[in-house]
Amino acid sequence: MTGEVAKAGRILRAPENFVDSQLALDITSKGLDEQRRGFLRKSFLAAGAALASGTAYGQAAGGDPAILTLPEHSRTLGKPVAANPYGMPSRFEGALQRRESPGLTRVNAASVSFTPLQSLFGIITPSGLHFERHHQGWHDIDPAQHRLMVNGLVRQQKVYTMDDLMRLPSVSRMHFIECGANTAMEWGNVAVPSVQYSHGMLSCSEFTGVPLSVLLDDCGYDKKTARFVLAEGADGSGMTRTISIDRALDDVLVAWGMNGEMLRPENGYPLRLVVPGVQGVSWVKWLRRIEVGDQPYAAKDEAIHYVDAMPDGMYRQYTSIQECKSVITTPSAGQRLLDTGFYNITGLAWSGRGKIKRVDVSTDGGRNWRTARLESPVLSKCLTRFNIDWTWDGAPAVLQARAIDETGYVQPKINELRAVRGTRSIYHNNAIQSWQVAASGEVSNVQVY
Amino acid sequence: MTGEVAKAGRILRAPENFVDSQLALDITSKGLDEQRRGFLRKSFLAAGAALASGTAYGQAAGGDPAILTLPEHSRTLGKPVAANPYGMPSRFEGALQRRESPGLTRVNAASVSFTPLQSLFGIITPSGLHFERHHQGWHDIDPAQHRLMVNGLVRQQKVYTMDDLMRLPSVSRMHFIECGANTAMEWGNVAVPSVQYSHGMLSCSEFTGVPLSVLLDDCGYDKKTARFVLAEGADGSGMTRTISIDRALDDVLVAWGMNGEMLRPENGYPLRLVVPGVQGVSWVKWLRRIEVGDQPYAAKDEAIHYVDAMPDGMYRQYTSIQECKSVITTPSAGQRLLDTGFYNITGLAWSGRGKIKRVDVSTDGGRNWRTARLESPVLSKCLTRFNIDWTWDGAPAVLQARAIDETGYVQPKINELRAVRGTRSIYHNNAIQSWQVAASGEVSNVQVY
Repeated sequence: MTGEVAKAGRILRAPENFVDSQLALDITSKGLDEQRRGFLRKSFLAAGAALASGTAYGQAAGGDPAILTLPEHSRTLGKPVAANPYGMPSRFEGALQRRESPGLTRVNAASVSFTPLQSLFGIITPSGLHFERHHQGWHDIDPAQHRLMVNGLVRQQKVYTMDDLMRLPSVSRMHFIECGANTAMEWGNVAVPSVQYSHGMLSCSEFTGVPLSVLLDDCGYDKKTARFVLAEGADGSGMTRTISIDRALDDVLVAWGMNGEMLRPENGYPLRLVVPGVQGVSWVKWLRRIEVGDQPYAAKDEAIHYVDAMPDGMYRQYTSIQECKSVITTPSAGQRLLDTGFYNITGLAWSGRGKIKRVDVSTDGGRNWRTARLESPVLSKCLTRFNIDWTWDGAPAVLQARAIDETGYVQPKINELRAVRGTRSIYHNNAIQSWQVAASGEVSNVQVY
Repeated sequence: MTGEVAKAGRILRAPENFVDSQLALDITSKGLDEQRRGFLRKSFLAAGAALASGTAYGQAAGGDPAILTLPEHSRTLGKPVAANPYGMPSRFEGALQRRESPGLTRVNAASVSFTPLQSLFGIITPSGLHFERHHQGWHDIDPAQHRLMVNGLVRQQKVYTMDDLMRLPSVSRMHFIECGANTAMEWGNVAVPSVQYSHGMLSCSEFTGVPLSVLLDDCGYDKKTARFVLAEGADGSGMTRTISIDRALDDVLVAWGMNGEMLRPENGYPLRLVVPGVQGVSWVKWLRRIEVGDQPYAAKDEAIHYVDAMPDGMYRQYTSIQECKSVITTPSAGQRLLDTGFYNITGLAWSGRGKIKRVDVSTDGGRNWRTARLESPVLSKCLTRFNIDWTWDGAPAVLQARAIDETGYVQPKINELRAVRGTRSIYHNNAIQSWQVAASGEVSNVQVY
């Protein structure tokens, strides 16, 4: 994975080809003064403001500072509109990818690709970089053929086409989705080398769909006996998950839209369940059936997998809510501070129980804390972006973030979590993450107790 | 443009290949009951729930209902994770494109491509479908070479690299961007045939960058004399726009991030100005220079272009704020209602002056109005999604939306706007839009006075 780490990038952001070039071309303040004087001396050569600002380019290109040249893109006709009817990132952003962690699973169709959190901004995850967790691979299903059945304890079972669904009252809401196994390696003291691999089973989108409650009402679910629903996917794994009827009637969506357009195939196109605050496995992709029942279904992926191993040898089932958590995304492990001075520490906070109330940041391993600035909007069961100023003096430092949600719950330290949960678990690790900054500027993943 | 209209799609959403297939394969309620009985008769064949829900597929594929077959994607191993390190939409969404309006300009590098609003959900515009308006084409500029100069009435002029900028305190905010010429054709009674072409110079993203005020402070702008700034782009058009110092110090961003990742090349990568509430031309792309001055610059694109022709033969300059406006995106012109019954009317509202307070919807050409439901979050100078129930009885109808912003401003009717502005203008048409539903279900663009 070492090769991958390099690709995960350094400060200030990931694509390392970009940052490396910056090092080579960095213009210091001193250099800038030189430049400016040169610019003023030679300004009679400039026909106007456009040329003037071209000085920086002339130098960056290695040319004689006395020769003021405009870059080619300021002198030529560019590409036409709709050259890309569906646009793509810059050619300089090619290193920004979701990445598999080789060897994590035996079959790459039943594996994970991680979102490159270290290089993202704000709270919206670009759909092309949304993390993936498949149990039997993904398909690009024809929406004209796809159907959703609602059956079980209902007055009338129904089969809906996509057109049927998309005529119904729809809502749009922003929510995070996090795999229950996110940050799993940290349970066992395996400090994975970047935030992409430690926390990258986390994404956030604006979802659009019909409330599941509308469909349950439409089919006349039995209010006396209905206590659970089962959601089932159409992929080969036939993923099935139990959801309580209270939750199903609350804020669960049968969604087709993600970030303004149709879901991507890897994220369940044309239909997936959105279960705000709950671990990703319950957000059943390629959703084809909802069954209403009177007891939990104890499906394979809730009775055997996705259970919490406890220190006494027992397993907790049906622990689905993603508790309050946060992580600093920049600076983070695998990045490097280029020099001392001012940095903007930034990261993400979220809670499956509601809104984030506060995020504190420490740069000395948890001895002192300062409250970070939260970007708006702060939404329920959604990522919240935080920022805080930091001036690095060149001494080793340990960076931590600690989130508090609107219920008053405080994100725990790893030793606090282990005291209750032990170290045998895979799931639901929401401990405070520590990043160590070395005197060299290298940032690495450490565990601080 | 007629061929283009077909591509703009019909109800419920655009890709017409999808909707057409739906027509061919529609399962009526009667058919469903038949299906269900068939399913129950044959259910001994089903090994479990997975097979059971496959009945719909067996029929949809045209097979004997007695033969229960699972679709191939439920029987096979799918594609691996990270098959697309940067994911793309489904192969079934190919018709969803930003499109040029042929003949609108003489050179396609100085033209427009429109966002397909009729097929989008929520408020976030997928970056691949963000509208384009270039004045001399677009380039994919190397961020390692790019520089931003701040000069003019400052204590120390400076040149910033991208790394310099990205270390500074950053903020993330969601804002709409609308071209001042959006909906221009409606001034002259030219009812363009779809909302993509009438309102598609409109997009909305989460932007991340450093407040311009931070850079102006960093360079020590002259508080006594500074009254305006000039923003200049690095493309061949050398786009330059004047912004008042009050606005520059308020909410303007020097942005590199859009929807979580770096700006797209067509949208100014690696740096653009974000001027919330102001027409798109001031959001200078490929931003390379900010000059602080004491008077407006009267640049070409503010003295001659982007001026409002008034009925008395005069022109208004520097009218930059996008006033309160809304439009129904579905159903909209070029779509077709497949049958009578329930529909979810949905659309977008926005104001350059702040938040949307209310959106009313009429289905009878403005005689009666009902208040629509606003999706959260409702943010300042950002798109707001509205939804409202409607049951179509099959009679002709005229659909309208009317937005009111937090200042109390009410979106005007087209005749109210013409009474003040005449019909010679190109810019700043924020009139109420009317869509006519014919008895056939066809939706078209009409002007209602």
